[in-house]
Amino acid sequence: MKVLFWGKEFQRFFDTLSTVFAHHTMSIADPLDDKGALNDAEVLVIRPATVDDELLARAPLLRMVQQWGAGTEGIDVAACSKRGVIACNVPSLGTGNAEGVAEVAFLHMLLHAKRFFRAREKLMEGKVYTPPGTALWGKRGCVVGLGNVGRSVALRMKAFGMNVTGVNRTPPSEEGVVDDFFPLSGLEQAVKGRRFVVVALALNAATENIFGESFFKAMDRDAFFINVARGGLVCRDALENALKEQWIAGAGLDVLWEEPHSPEDPILTHPAVTVTPHIGGVNDASFEGVLSFIVRNIDLLASGKNPLSRLDIKGAGASQSR
Amino acid sequence: MKVLFWGKEFQRFFDTLSTVFAHHTMSIADPLDDKGALNDAEVLVIRPATVDDELLARAPLLRMVQQWGAGTEGIDVAACSKRGVIACNVPSLGTGNAEGVAEVAFLHMLLHAKRFFRAREKLMEGKVYTPPGTALWGKRGCVVGLGNVGRSVALRMKAFGMNVTGVNRTPPSEEGVVDDFFPLSGLEQAVKGRRFVVVALALNAATENIFGESFFKAMDRDAFFINVARGGLVCRDALENALKEQWIAGAGLDVLWEEPHSPEDPILTHPAVTVTPHIGGVNDASFEGVLSFIVRNIDLLASGKNPLSRLDIKGAGASQSR
Repeated sequence: MKVLFWGKEFQRFFDTLSTVFAHHTMSIADPLDDKGALNDAEVLVIRPATVDDELLARAPLLRMVQQWGAGTEGIDVAACSKRGVIACNVPSLGTGNAEGVAEVAFLHMLLHAKRFFRAREKLMEGKVYTPPGTALWGKRGCVVGLGNVGRSVALRMKAFGMNVTGVNRTPPSEEGVVDDFFPLSGLEQAVKGRRFVVVALALNAATENIFGESFFKAMDRDAFFINVARGGLVCRDALENALKEQWIAGAGLDVLWEEPHSPEDPILTHPAVTVTPHIGGVNDASFEGVLSFIVRNIDLLASGKNPLSRLDIKGAGASQSR
Repeated sequence: MKVLFWGKEFQRFFDTLSTVFAHHTMSIADPLDDKGALNDAEVLVIRPATVDDELLARAPLLRMVQQWGAGTEGIDVAACSKRGVIACNVPSLGTGNAEGVAEVAFLHMLLHAKRFFRAREKLMEGKVYTPPGTALWGKRGCVVGLGNVGRSVALRMKAFGMNVTGVNRTPPSEEGVVDDFFPLSGLEQAVKGRRFVVVALALNAATENIFGESFFKAMDRDAFFINVARGGLVCRDALENALKEQWIAGAGLDVLWEEPHSPEDPILTHPAVTVTPHIGGVNDASFEGVLSFIVRNIDLLASGKNPLSRLDIKGAGASQSR
C-alpha cells in the first residue's frame, strides 16, 4: 500500500520506517508543502494534525487515517466516515505510551516537590540538606481525566502514598482506581485541598479551555498544576494570571498551546513553570509499541481485514477519557 | 533537660526548635568551634556527624545522642554504651524520611530516563516530540539495600511496571518486595541486565567503597547508577572512571563524598551526572515526623522512661539495611 507519513518529524525515523514498511510504498510529506503527495496516498499516518474534509478531498485514494499515538483531536471522524475512510489510533496502555506520559507527569511533580532548580542553586553554593522539599507521600493528588493516562498516574500516586481524587465525565469502571471521585462538573470542588493536580483529559469541544480563571482560583495556593494532555485544555491567560497572582504554586507542562512552540515563548523560562517538549509518549517502549501496532494495522487493511482501534466504531477505539 | 543541637545547619530552624523545646534548655553549637557547649549538654542532637570517644569525653553530663534522621554511621555506639550514653536514631519509615528518599531516587531516575537537560535544549530550539527517552515501564531495576528506603524504592518501581531485583545482606522478610533476590556477595551478578541501579545501603565497615571498579564494569553500558544513601559507599575514582570510559550511561547522586561539598567539585557539573544536595530526607513531612519523634524521645528520657529506636539494643533500632 502507499503509506504517507504526514509531518517532517517522521524524517528522523526514516531508516527504521523504510525497513519496517519495506513491503509497502512509504514516503514522508511536509503538510505545509506536500507537493501533491496526498494524491495517491492510501494510508495517512499522522502526529497530532488536522484531518478535515478539505484535506480528505485532496486524498482521493485514501482508505485509512492512522494516528501515531492515542490523541486524536485533530481528526474529523465524521468527515472520514462520510468518505469511507477508516480512522484509527493506537491504544495507549500497554504500548509504553500512557505509562510514559504518567512518568513525565511524575517528573514534573518531583521537579516541583523537590524544588530541583533551587536545589541546584544551593548545590552550587556548597550547601547541603536544603532546600526542604515537599513529600508526595501523605499528600492529596487529583487526576483530571481517567483514561489510560489518568489511571496510570493514579496507580503510581497511590504507590507513592498519596490519596487520589479522580475527575472524569463518567465514574471509573474498576474499583479502587481512585480514593474519591467527582464528575467533570465538580472539577472546582475536586481540586480543593489537593496539592498536585494532573491533567490527563482528551481535548474536544467540551473540554477546550476547561481550565480557566475560576478553576485556578479554586486550586490551593500551594498546589501544582501538571498538564501532560493538551495545551488547548487550558486557558493560557488564566494560567499566566494564576502564576502571577500566586493562586497556585507552580505548573509543569509537557504540552503547550502551539506545537511546535516559539523558542521565545516566555513560559519556557518562567521561574514557577517546568516545561518539556511533549516527550510524554516519546520513549523506546512506546516507539516500538506504536510502530508495531501500526505495521500490523496497515497489514490488516492490506489483507482485507478490519484494522484495530477504530475511532468510527464505538467500543473499538482506544479508551481516552472524554 | 539541656538539649544541644550539633551543627550550624540547625540554625535555620531556630524559631521552630525553640518553640517545640521550650520546656527544655535548647542551644545550637558549631562542631568546629563549640565554645564549650558540650560541657553541660545532656542530649546531643546530630545530623550525620562523628560521635566518638574523644567527643564523649568532652560531654561529661551527656545521657543521650539522638540522630536527626535514620543514618547513624558517625556514631560509635560501643563508645556511647561504655559511658552509659544512650544512642538513638529516628525510624525512617512512616516519618516521610524513607519515603522522601525514595522520591528523590525517582527524581534522579526520571531526569536520566527522560533526558531532562537534553529535552530543555530541544525545547529552547523550538523542537517537540524529542529527545526520545527511556520508559521505566517494562525495564529491570535493581535496589541495593532493602531497609526502609530500599523497600520504599522497590514498591514504587513495581507500581511503575518495573521488574525489581533486590540485593541485601539478608533476604527480605516480607514476600513480594522484590521479584528476585541476591545476597550482597552476588552484587555484580545482580546488576547485569538492570537498567536502573538504586543504592539504599547503610554505610559501615563492610559496605565502605563496596561500589568499585569491578562493580561498575559489571553494570550494563546503558544503565544508570543512583545513590541516595551515602557517598562513602562508592569508590569515587571507580565511578569517575566508569563515566569517562562509558561503562555506565550516567549517575544520579543525592550524596557526595564530603558533605558539605566543595562548590568547585567537577562532579556537580558532569554532563552525565545529576546531583542534589542530600535533600532525600529533607521535606515537610519528614521535618515534622523527625521533630515530633525527637521531642517525644527526649520527653521519655526526661521522665525516666526508655527512649525509642535505641541503637545499642538489638531490635530496638531503626531497620536500616546492613
